[in-house]
Amino acid sequence: MDHISQQFDADLGAIKGHVLSMGGLVERQIVDALHAIIEADSQRAEEVLAREREVNRMEVSVDDEATRILVKRQPAASDLRTVLALIKTVRDLERVGDEAKKIAKLALKLTEEGPSPRGYHELRHIGAEVVAMLHVALDAMTRLDVEAALGVVRRDKDVDREYKSATRELVTYMMEDPRSISRVMNIMWALRSLERIGDHARNIAEYVFYMAKGKDLRHEGLESIESAVRSWS
Amino acid sequence: MDHISQQFDADLGAIKGHVLSMGGLVERQIVDALHAIIEADSQRAEEVLAREREVNRMEVSVDDEATRILVKRQPAASDLRTVLALIKTVRDLERVGDEAKKIAKLALKLTEEGPSPRGYHELRHIGAEVVAMLHVALDAMTRLDVEAALGVVRRDKDVDREYKSATRELVTYMMEDPRSISRVMNIMWALRSLERIGDHARNIAEYVFYMAKGKDLRHEGLESIESAVRSWS
Repeated sequence: MDHISQQFDADLGAIKGHVLSMGGLVERQIVDALHAIIEADSQRAEEVLAREREVNRMEVSVDDEATRILVKRQPAASDLRTVLALIKTVRDLERVGDEAKKIAKLALKLTEEGPSPRGYHELRHIGAEVVAMLHVALDAMTRLDVEAALGVVRRDKDVDREYKSATRELVTYMMEDPRSISRVMNIMWALRSLERIGDHARNIAEYVFYMAKGKDLRHEGLESIESAVRSWS
Repeated sequence: MDHISQQFDADLGAIKGHVLSMGGLVERQIVDALHAIIEADSQRAEEVLAREREVNRMEVSVDDEATRILVKRQPAASDLRTVLALIKTVRDLERVGDEAKKIAKLALKLTEEGPSPRGYHELRHIGAEVVAMLHVALDAMTRLDVEAALGVVRRDKDVDREYKSATRELVTYMMEDPRSISRVMNIMWALRSLERIGDHARNIAEYVFYMAKGKDLRHEGLESIESAVRSWS
């Protein structure tokens, strides 16, 4: 029995490691896609597109590993929750990779159409924010740190607010300079992708509550999540 | 043993039923949200927003059921695949519900800002298309019909193409009539939500391949999916 549970822990540890590697790769995809769009670096954009396959491959491979561990070890309760949360996490990470790919494609369009006259201030700011959120969420998952996960949920609120205000400003800008519309729209779509990435980071943070405490807080408001986390400490 | 497997089939049948009910509710959410935006019907939009809780509740409840069946029955191979695919399906359905909510909110904005001068032709058309795709995907899941699932993957390609062309036309329209930008942007966001719903329908169709044949074709191109389906028939 002890031997079996040691083996299970080793297998689970390996899967967690692969999820984190995938997280690292996906973070890099966002960073590079943002660099490509801000610096009009089409070379870098192509690299992001080329690495997308690797992200997809990792999703399928972690998914396989997790299914195998369910068949072989039939884990109960908290171990099962962990495996299910990891399966969901890679799905979110794959979608983050997808958004990075979209941003890289927008970078290629912008290198053709010429740079956005509006600059990239919002992209830079919100981009840094969501990359940090994703990093913290994955780190919280490793350490089952519910306080850190709560921090990610809070930051997602800020990102949503900043995204809305950036969108409003870009609409105003387009109205004043209609010839820029098509280029500014590319920034708009890139911001939308970043806002989604923030949502995925929040999802991952919410799986941490589920892994650590067995609580599904996905559709709870911030206040009730805060009071749940307080009750655990 | 026979009794246990009968019990498992009954439990699994119940979960499938709940997934389909959730699918039905989510379809209605899209239809109503589109009606709200096209007919400037804020009452209907509010109904969609109110029902969003129900969608979320269903996701959590199916997820719980599926986790319980894994703990209690420890299914192997194809049964396990089915349970995992159902867990993923409700996640996609919940996100479709989220997109419907976004469209309903855009409907409320449009009733304030005045209707889109551009009309709703594209919304109507692409909306009908993705609702049908979602319906076929869930139906294919019930009958493990890989041909029907392939049809959904093909239609998603068409939707992506139509979405791109609609977006281009709307950009042109905004350039010609900059005062309409903010209202036309609402149509743009609603189209984006529909395009996402098409992606989720495609995801669900891809789970059908996995449930029926144990094949993960999520990141394959259309051609290799077609040749896999041909090889099964």
